[in-house]
Amino acid sequence: MKNTDLQDYSHKRLNILTGEWVLVSPHRAKRPWQGQNEAVSNDVRPAYDETCYLCAGNTRINGEINPKYQNVFVFTNDFAALQKDSKSFSIKDGLLVAESETGICKVICFSPDHSKSLADMSVKDIQKVVFAWQKEFKELSENPNINYVQIFENKGAVMGCSNPHPHGQIWSQSTLPNEVDKKNTQQLAYYKKNNSSLLGDYLAQELENQERIIFENDSFVVLVPFWAVWPFETMIVPKKQQATILKLNNTEALDYAEAISVITKAYDKLFNTSFPYSSGIHQAPTDGNTNSHWHWHMSFYPPLLRSATVKKFMVGYEMFGSPQRDITAESAVKMIKSLI
Amino acid sequence: MKNTDLQDYSHKRLNILTGEWVLVSPHRAKRPWQGQNEAVSNDVRPAYDETCYLCAGNTRINGEINPKYQNVFVFTNDFAALQKDSKSFSIKDGLLVAESETGICKVICFSPDHSKSLADMSVKDIQKVVFAWQKEFKELSENPNINYVQIFENKGAVMGCSNPHPHGQIWSQSTLPNEVDKKNTQQLAYYKKNNSSLLGDYLAQELENQERIIFENDSFVVLVPFWAVWPFETMIVPKKQQATILKLNNTEALDYAEAISVITKAYDKLFNTSFPYSSGIHQAPTDGNTNSHWHWHMSFYPPLLRSATVKKFMVGYEMFGSPQRDITAESAVKMIKSLI
Ligand SMILES: O=P(O)(O)O[C@H]1O[C@H](CO)[C@@H](O)[C@H](O)[C@H]1O
Ligand SMILES: O=P(O)(O)O[C@H]1O[C@H](CO)[C@@H](O)[C@H](O)[C@H]1O
Repeated sequence: MKNTDLQDYSHKRLNILTGEWVLVSPHRAKRPWQGQNEAVSNDVRPAYDETCYLCAGNTRINGEINPKYQNVFVFTNDFAALQKDSKSFSIKDGLLVAESETGICKVICFSPDHSKSLADMSVKDIQKVVFAWQKEFKELSENPNINYVQIFENKGAVMGCSNPHPHGQIWSQSTLPNEVDKKNTQQLAYYKKNNSSLLGDYLAQELENQERIIFENDSFVVLVPFWAVWPFETMIVPKKQQATILKLNNTEALDYAEAISVITKAYDKLFNTSFPYSSGIHQAPTDGNTNSHWHWHMSFYPPLLRSATVKKFMVGYEMFGSPQRDITAESAVKMIKSLI
Repeated sequence: MKNTDLQDYSHKRLNILTGEWVLVSPHRAKRPWQGQNEAVSNDVRPAYDETCYLCAGNTRINGEINPKYQNVFVFTNDFAALQKDSKSFSIKDGLLVAESETGICKVICFSPDHSKSLADMSVKDIQKVVFAWQKEFKELSENPNINYVQIFENKGAVMGCSNPHPHGQIWSQSTLPNEVDKKNTQQLAYYKKNNSSLLGDYLAQELENQERIIFENDSFVVLVPFWAVWPFETMIVPKKQQATILKLNNTEALDYAEAISVITKAYDKLFNTSFPYSSGIHQAPTDGNTNSHWHWHMSFYPPLLRSATVKKFMVGYEMFGSPQRDITAESAVKMIKSLI
């Protein structure tokens, strides 16, 4: 069913995975922009930068020397937000409530080539990144103090990324962060009621409908979720219900790498720029349970709205009310799809 | 009770108003910054700018001419995200759920003087802004289609503000946005259980403790909430439990204006810049109920972290996990308080 009202009138859509709403104002994209423009850096970077603390063979701020790595290189974050051997405490002092939180934070260099991003890497090389994610996830999930592993990437200066060398991060911790907790609750409730995967059933509906599908291969679908918040937000979903990326066999890992390649390449074409975003993989907790209600997925949250220099600001109303978007998910699909 | 563990170890704190957690990493402020710097504009603006569409007597984009206003001027947003006479519809198509959302969006110019911000205005002039908020809130709350009124300000280009003329916005709508819904639920649960105001009881505890108090006068307290997310986040709370700003008498409105003046002036001194932020007032729904569980309050969410040019990026982990902060609420209090 295609509902044209969704393209014409202000409305809100439900994110079935979090239980929260997004306000959609299709007519608002017409408003002129007189605000801040972002800087675009389209300068070509060298394959090796002697001042980069992530390049192979270079010395990091803490004095350690990076190996002469050939593919992927992982190390423990020198300025980790979560500490491994932090003191354990719990405070419940009237209405002041706090809990110590321990964890392990890692940095993962996707390639020794300083000039590349995932969009420029071969599918085979992205598959090596997927293998590294699996390896790290496995190791962390076996740690009894780690109950959740967040894999993510901040790409581009506008996303707070302080080094253009292709890299992502892994923050793992003892409790579930807010966003994961919401998705855990929603998926569990649905699974208990329907004995099937919430995201799997949603995927089936989207594949039937086709309106928000960007790309698919044997094992994965790339789509713009009905409830997308960011102008060009997308999601990569495995067709089989899998709780974590550990379930991927080699062929599926290659299909996953292809999906990442396709969407990041399309993004770069959209505004003719190395497209900034934060991406992240939401997976089942690593608490030792089977978590059969979980269906892992990867999301891309890119900030740009109109061009390489004009982004969507999630500010006043969005911070105090609800997220709000100006173009519909369906128009975003059309723009992205035409570039594949 | 002062707990020094909170200053030394990574931990999470509970926001009692939303039920969500913030990750605090006190040790992380030491990390060097090599990322994006914001542009600072400390250029002195003229009191009148002929190209500004908010200045008195100027023509707006839609052709309307602003009156020669002397104090505060309110008009309906020319590019409103919410439409008043939008079509009403409701979609429940399998796992696709959407509802039409109607509303009224207004712009409120705080002063005809293009060069000013709230921090530069007299307390008497800020009181006029408070009166205007009351007037608009009253009118909108009497509209049967409006069940919630969000008053907010985006200040500074880094907060998506496209015009430096001092102004804020009011978005009003038929349903409760996410953030308000959470605060409604938490306050109601507490009120039912304790027959007292959640925020009132929290305020009493903070006034006893004093560690996070920045300023107080007869009717208001300015504090850094225990669960603050943004590096220099603050909250203005009325001492009396009031559901909305309509309850303020003239003296209280003046005290409120003083609180706004004190905190915005301190902000400007912090990094010697016109301090950017989004601020917003959370109040009871305007659904016709008494909402005795509500205690209105105003929050300031400023993005800057280390200087006028280095902000805190709420990106990867924050988007996929939980908000995360690098300096503790208690150190922020010390820095802000020393400037009053
Ligand atoms: O309404 P403005 O000032 O044009 O727009 C600004 O505030 C709005 C409400 O927070 C946001 O949706 C926009 O992204 C932002 O640029
Ligand atoms: O860890 P980095 O890359 O230095 O820092 C970046 O990502 C972190 C995790 O999303 C954020 O907390 C920081 O604000 C951001 O600048």
